[in-house]
Amino acid sequence: MKVYDLIIVGAGAAGCSAALTARQRNLRVLMFYFGDGAMEKAHRMDNYPGMPQVEGKEMVRVFRLQAADAGVELKKQLITKVLPVNDGFSLLAGNDLYEAKTVLLALGALRVNPLPGEEELLGQGVSYCATCDGMFYRGKRIIVIAGGREAVEEANYLADLGQVTYFIEKPHDTQELAASITVVKEKPKQIRQSGQDLILVTDQGEHETDGLFVLRPAVAMTQMLPELETRKGVISTDHDLMTNVPGVFAAGDILGAPLQVTKAVGEGNRAALAIASYLRKQVS
Amino acid sequence: MKVYDLIIVGAGAAGCSAALTARQRNLRVLMFYFGDGAMEKAHRMDNYPGMPQVEGKEMVRVFRLQAADAGVELKKQLITKVLPVNDGFSLLAGNDLYEAKTVLLALGALRVNPLPGEEELLGQGVSYCATCDGMFYRGKRIIVIAGGREAVEEANYLADLGQVTYFIEKPHDTQELAASITVVKEKPKQIRQSGQDLILVTDQGEHETDGLFVLRPAVAMTQMLPELETRKGVISTDHDLMTNVPGVFAAGDILGAPLQVTKAVGEGNRAALAIASYLRKQVS
Repeated sequence: MKVYDLIIVGAGAAGCSAALTARQRNLRVLMFYFGDGAMEKAHRMDNYPGMPQVEGKEMVRVFRLQAADAGVELKKQLITKVLPVNDGFSLLAGNDLYEAKTVLLALGALRVNPLPGEEELLGQGVSYCATCDGMFYRGKRIIVIAGGREAVEEANYLADLGQVTYFIEKPHDTQELAASITVVKEKPKQIRQSGQDLILVTDQGEHETDGLFVLRPAVAMTQMLPELETRKGVISTDHDLMTNVPGVFAAGDILGAPLQVTKAVGEGNRAALAIASYLRKQVS
Repeated sequence: MKVYDLIIVGAGAAGCSAALTARQRNLRVLMFYFGDGAMEKAHRMDNYPGMPQVEGKEMVRVFRLQAADAGVELKKQLITKVLPVNDGFSLLAGNDLYEAKTVLLALGALRVNPLPGEEELLGQGVSYCATCDGMFYRGKRIIVIAGGREAVEEANYLADLGQVTYFIEKPHDTQELAASITVVKEKPKQIRQSGQDLILVTDQGEHETDGLFVLRPAVAMTQMLPELETRKGVISTDHDLMTNVPGVFAAGDILGAPLQVTKAVGEGNRAALAIASYLRKQVS
């Protein structure tokens, strides 16, 4: 398996900036993106030097194109797990595994608050990946908790397998949902087990199911990398932007205010330089 | 006299980024530039997101144009003094005085090391400004210590007044020097007084003069703002990038490594937000 020097989780301002500088240092870089971040949602930005009055979407497009041109590999997949292994990390995206010597967390400001019961029941009927686990629920009852428009495509895949009930956690466009899917406008509150069944508790009642898919544009940090230390909800880093897990760095909005592209590109740059220096020390 | 909310000394990456964000916060901003900074000298930069493979000069041009479009006033003058006055600052450029409530130092990595005797004899025959003090040496002997190509034009002005001897402190293009100017290839070491005369001591001898102009692209921080605290040669700032002088902030290469455009724009942004917050508190 190919081992990257650096895998970047998140391809916004911090991720792309880190990727460019890492390529200058000749590192092998793989960068993952998935849902829309804060930049994609910005109608117009006026204070990024070099790109006057730019729409957020266009900025993301240009940044990623530049990264790709510089030799960065980009993949659209949701990373659900970062596993420290000897001398490096294994990253899980669906059923695919990727390996890297270092990891940069650049996922943006998105906060994911798991439902009570969600993390405890993961792998016991609760899943984050329709492609991975959908087949287990062929012909059965499936609940989808949808945290964004990314859920629509996966829900449609699940609708080919079983009978899908769709709960909306965060408002998003559901126009393209398959006709066979039932949309329930209740607010998910908790997940619990009852014999062989799972129960989704909402603000208005309870719903039994065989399988429950939580499909959000990101997974909670507590889930992705439980070892990670945070302070007041923000990842703790040292001066080099390294977290308490050696080899795992963080940059951008994930590190808190100001939530600005300029600050994020600066931190991405600093993190990449620190990562290059960290890798040099590992070799010697 | 017009009082600016913010005067930025230096119009590179940090200065332009700060200027753009300050304009978003509706501050009245004046930004000074003078000599070439590190960006102007960069042949090509590959790791600034949004401007692939850009020449430094072009980047500076685009940044400043964007700042001007956003309503920032730009002036090409060398700021020689920042004077704290009640509730704000007076800044001296040649014989012109500018006033601001806050100051951002964004002069880049350029280090100016005054010659022994230079600062002590400033105003007693030593001057940093040909336009201001040239007339005092009409028909007299004038020595110019030239720290960059900015000195050429001022030396030519002085050559119309007196007899100029030109010493090169830092290598630069001297092709356009007036024919009447004598260029001496000795290394300036010290300035001292001898009766009515000044003596320039070089690595090869001594040169008497009536007036001595030190013309560099920047002045030493110890000269510009003696109150400023530094640690290991780097300006000390708090988390908001404010120096020990309340109302004076710093950002970019002047704060040390990494000397990168991305880091500088991030710091410029942070400083501007801190300045806006500082000004709000002053009002209330």
